[in-house]
Amino acid sequence: MIDKNVALISSGTVQIIPEVDLKKKLESGKVLQIKLGADPTAPDLHLGHAVVLSKLKQFQQLGHHVVFLIGDFTAHIGDPTGKSKTRPPLSDEQIKHNTKTYFEQVGKILDIKKVSVRFNSEWLDALSSKDMVKLCAQVTLARLIEREDFATRMENNQAIGFHELLYPLFQGYDSVALKSDIELGGTDQTFNLLMGRFLQEQYNQAPQIVITMPLLIGLDGVHKMSKSLGNYIGLTEPADQAFGKLMSISDDLMWHYFEVLLCRTKDEVAQLRSRVAAGTLHPMELKKDMAQEVIIKFWSLDEAQKAREAFTALFQQKDYSKAQEVALPAATQNPIWIVELLKILGAVASSSEARRLIDGKAVHVDEQTVTDFKAEISWQSGTIIKVGKHRIYKIS
Amino acid sequence: MIDKNVALISSGTVQIIPEVDLKKKLESGKVLQIKLGADPTAPDLHLGHAVVLSKLKQFQQLGHHVVFLIGDFTAHIGDPTGKSKTRPPLSDEQIKHNTKTYFEQVGKILDIKKVSVRFNSEWLDALSSKDMVKLCAQVTLARLIEREDFATRMENNQAIGFHELLYPLFQGYDSVALKSDIELGGTDQTFNLLMGRFLQEQYNQAPQIVITMPLLIGLDGVHKMSKSLGNYIGLTEPADQAFGKLMSISDDLMWHYFEVLLCRTKDEVAQLRSRVAAGTLHPMELKKDMAQEVIIKFWSLDEAQKAREAFTALFQQKDYSKAQEVALPAATQNPIWIVELLKILGAVASSSEARRLIDGKAVHVDEQTVTDFKAEISWQSGTIIKVGKHRIYKIS
Repeated sequence: MIDKNVALISSGTVQIIPEVDLKKKLESGKVLQIKLGADPTAPDLHLGHAVVLSKLKQFQQLGHHVVFLIGDFTAHIGDPTGKSKTRPPLSDEQIKHNTKTYFEQVGKILDIKKVSVRFNSEWLDALSSKDMVKLCAQVTLARLIEREDFATRMENNQAIGFHELLYPLFQGYDSVALKSDIELGGTDQTFNLLMGRFLQEQYNQAPQIVITMPLLIGLDGVHKMSKSLGNYIGLTEPADQAFGKLMSISDDLMWHYFEVLLCRTKDEVAQLRSRVAAGTLHPMELKKDMAQEVIIKFWSLDEAQKAREAFTALFQQKDYSKAQEVALPAATQNPIWIVELLKILGAVASSSEARRLIDGKAVHVDEQTVTDFKAEISWQSGTIIKVGKHRIYKIS
Repeated sequence: MIDKNVALISSGTVQIIPEVDLKKKLESGKVLQIKLGADPTAPDLHLGHAVVLSKLKQFQQLGHHVVFLIGDFTAHIGDPTGKSKTRPPLSDEQIKHNTKTYFEQVGKILDIKKVSVRFNSEWLDALSSKDMVKLCAQVTLARLIEREDFATRMENNQAIGFHELLYPLFQGYDSVALKSDIELGGTDQTFNLLMGRFLQEQYNQAPQIVITMPLLIGLDGVHKMSKSLGNYIGLTEPADQAFGKLMSISDDLMWHYFEVLLCRTKDEVAQLRSRVAAGTLHPMELKKDMAQEVIIKFWSLDEAQKAREAFTALFQQKDYSKAQEVALPAATQNPIWIVELLKILGAVASSSEARRLIDGKAVHVDEQTVTDFKAEISWQSGTIIKVGKHRIYKIS
């Protein structure tokens, strides 16, 4: 039973530090505190976050206790130099609002009633200057600047604000305050997660186990999925749209999604690859299976079925009756600048993204390719806008 | 008048940063706040401290206001890792006691009634964790590790506790809290003094002028004068003993003392040197002049006169009737281990210092050279112990 649970928790992870302790903790019979850090400045969740959330769900299913740690202490501060306009201090209302939005999305994957939410201002606000000196005294400078981004910036003579070095300490101290047994994060968080483990030992606690999950590559097949790069599928996007985006990825990336999002083992993926290579499995059909399975996992069985049918009708049978209908706001200009229109449809996040798509001849209005970035588009009910191979919008 | 004051304040300094501001501040007619940091863990002052204190005295004489900043915040913390036994946290009583001792000694040079004493716990204790983040955000890591000792330790892969980097920030913030106009220190404090200047600017204050004074070389002619090296003359030592120690320094070091302790210009020192070289001035007589002048400056005219006479009687006329009499404690063993005896007499600070002196054949009891480190000495009233060329103790 425990071995089965260890195997379940281990599946799809990149590292468990130390592996030997995981079995011990699971055997202890204790309800474990599973910590995940959440950033109240970026409340839009996407499939990249789903990787870690799915792992948390497994812990929930085994009866353990998931704690979301909202980093409101630093969010309240914003940029402490006051020089950056892109990092203003957030008010309590903004943080409350972002947290609410965040958990509406988390609720798509986790049982929200069973999670705890803690704000680190609770203990970090209360640290005195003496406590801070004591906290800082637990580590050496050399250890802190081992963090990859610090090391890189030092090598490139890029400035590091001294306060930035405090942040991994704060994040680690959160584990002390929470007495967490296990902390999860992406592989890019390894340093910070280990800092929690280290500080717990310094403060005479049993050190948490660190579990890192792979970073999901975005739709572009190159970068980590992120909202700012526009290469993402949001957890609250309509299932149809998510299905279309999943169908737009390269075959190479499909294997990655099978592994990371659907927890297939390397062996299972290798078998699928060889069947595709042998011609006994059509990659387009396999991609539809993948997309359907992702939608089942993070949306619902019903939505997945409908999304697959709509996709087949739209793109294979060119039946636009099932295209996603979008009602434009009453005040929408007509004709309208194509970039503006793409933004209203939610097809692009920025003008530069629109420009890339238009330059790549990937934007079509009623089957006509748009070639001019400055084009003005006349529209009416029923106008079809196609973006890339797998996104179709119908104006209602 | 102002030019005369600028010349007075500038005399004997190593750096004034920036020089141009000194005249402006002195011209302003304002009573200036002159800051000096004091360490409550090391209350024993010696001639090395006298260099800076003399400069403060000049400011007092011009009507400015001297503020002693007692670093009790960090003294209260001690070694925050709790691992060092040599840096225990100091209690309020200990700090109060040390401060009292400190000012008894300072009073030998400054008019104590006119100085202010401030404890930095007053504002540093009150800094919240957010204030600390803001303070740290004022500087880059690169700037902090420019401090010479940090840079050297990084180069040699020696550990730097992360909290150590906070200390120059605290010291700089003291200048903000005090709104100091000028801060003084030894040249080894330049980085920290400039940090005060820098932080005042960040906190929208007029930045303090930094004045650095030369470090006095100790009796050994090699290292900075310090208690731990035993190469010092304490401000509370009997004038006779101080005179003897001054007479024990090399001729080379004498020029340094003329410059640093007696504020002779380089030209004046050069003239003295050439007279000695020409044989028109005897170095022994010149050294007595120097010693006498130092005792006049930091002890009194009367004590200086007596010390010179006693020295001449003792060492030139071998008349031990004027030797410093020392009463041994009632329980003192007889015979007694030579090292123990030297410690009781205050002739050495440690057994290793005693060993060096004995090995160097510099310890004599009633004109007999002590050659054995383990020697047991029989003593009685009138026993003469000679240590080095210029220290003589007579047991009373």
